[in-house]
Amino acid sequence: MAELIRSIDEMHRIAADLRQAGRRIGVVPTMGFLHDGHLALIREAGRRSDVVITTVFVNPTQFGRGEDFERYPRDLQRDTTLAESAGTTFVFAPGHRAVYPEGYATFVEVTGLDRVLEGKSRPGHFRGVATIVLKLFNITVPHCALFGQKDAQQVAVIRRMVQDLNMDVELIIVPTVRERDGLAMSSRNAYLKERERQEARVLHRSLQLAATRIREGVRSCPAIIGDMTALITAESSGQIDYVSIADAGTLGELSEIRAGGEVLVSLAVRFGTTRLIDNVVVEVVG
Amino acid sequence: MAELIRSIDEMHRIAADLRQAGRRIGVVPTMGFLHDGHLALIREAGRRSDVVITTVFVNPTQFGRGEDFERYPRDLQRDTTLAESAGTTFVFAPGHRAVYPEGYATFVEVTGLDRVLEGKSRPGHFRGVATIVLKLFNITVPHCALFGQKDAQQVAVIRRMVQDLNMDVELIIVPTVRERDGLAMSSRNAYLKERERQEARVLHRSLQLAATRIREGVRSCPAIIGDMTALITAESSGQIDYVSIADAGTLGELSEIRAGGEVLVSLAVRFGTTRLIDNVVVEVVG
Repeated sequence: MAELIRSIDEMHRIAADLRQAGRRIGVVPTMGFLHDGHLALIREAGRRSDVVITTVFVNPTQFGRGEDFERYPRDLQRDTTLAESAGTTFVFAPGHRAVYPEGYATFVEVTGLDRVLEGKSRPGHFRGVATIVLKLFNITVPHCALFGQKDAQQVAVIRRMVQDLNMDVELIIVPTVRERDGLAMSSRNAYLKERERQEARVLHRSLQLAATRIREGVRSCPAIIGDMTALITAESSGQIDYVSIADAGTLGELSEIRAGGEVLVSLAVRFGTTRLIDNVVVEVVG
Repeated sequence: MAELIRSIDEMHRIAADLRQAGRRIGVVPTMGFLHDGHLALIREAGRRSDVVITTVFVNPTQFGRGEDFERYPRDLQRDTTLAESAGTTFVFAPGHRAVYPEGYATFVEVTGLDRVLEGKSRPGHFRGVATIVLKLFNITVPHCALFGQKDAQQVAVIRRMVQDLNMDVELIIVPTVRERDGLAMSSRNAYLKERERQEARVLHRSLQLAATRIREGVRSCPAIIGDMTALITAESSGQIDYVSIADAGTLGELSEIRAGGEVLVSLAVRFGTTRLIDNVVVEVVG
């Protein structure tokens, strides 16, 4: 059975001992309510390391005012069982007070990357993400850490932070896991009403449409975004927060597709009170 | 002879190997131009660890516009010899481009503590300090790190950061080393003209005056600050930036001395173009 660790000091002691003993540690940071996307990360961590630590912490500092921190789904017993089934040795689930004690004051900012896309809609979100990931790395001293491509901007922010702060952690990015009809796995899918769930299929279809247009040779980003928007609007009641085509490294918005790089096509759309994100990375040849 | 390391990767490899071999690493972060204050830190590091790494890096991100980054004194050969004489095994002196490469974007902020005292006069200073210290810790993976009490607010900021970010580094704070006439050792003392150097003695005397007043039972901070200001003004041409009495932990300004805690009496005064800081911590009994 995976061992559930609540104490920061105990987790750190265990991790430091494992490291001292020459064991390779892989960490999978999650907010819990695990789905097949998380389990893919855990399984990959098992292939890349000797000991897998799955962290479960709904991090308040990455939620804005009026966001879904309170109602974010939680089920630690289920998470522990699922994490174990995928090969987790330790589930680390600290309490909020221990993570952010009275007088807590320190935050990590990845400037620039945190102001675009999700950062524009969710100010402070990536400051919260960068800070908690740095803390979890310091507690679990991992050799490698696994994140899903679904959170593309999170990946870019953490990659930049790890490089800038000289952190000795290998980042392993795992492709987005999707439902059979294409919807990206997300703990927030649990919020969707049945009709919204049906309509949400259009998100992946719109991303596939963009990839097709780029491969067909369309170079105008507004034109591609226009096609995506038209599709989403025609086939769902989703309220578009943004649809973006950006450089996959810098996240700078593009007006025109240029050959010889990767572009990130990403979107955020609200279905009722549920905000979903998704993306594809398209390699642009010739 | 102490070994001079220029490469971040090489320094990290050496430190990681030392740690793996069970050696205890002590790091002394400096901006170079070493004086007896630094050497006291290095000697104490030698008592507290097996291997001492002294870092020498004039960190541009902690200097504001119009501050003395360009003219800050540098002499790496002399520093290496002095560091060696005090017991340093490795002098780590990376280049600026390697520390802050093109596209660098990540900063650590210790909110609140960075806005008072020095932070008010030097906006961004402690963001630069916290960031470089975190980076140096990640590169040198020390068991303990040594800082001087002279930079009292720096100590408070780093202590808060280490605690908040769950960093596994023991902080060792070493008392301020002074010239025979009381002037706190500082690389910036090298800027002082002879007359300014003479006048600067008044700084320590004003701090001693404050300590005496507190011990005599004076409780009004404005009264004590008034006495200090009068002394500095009467006996020097120094331009006072601030004179402060604050809670030693939170750095919150006090209007009245209360029993049962430590107060930080600190000041910053300009002599010509040279800005000096100094402080004493006074324990307040009954």
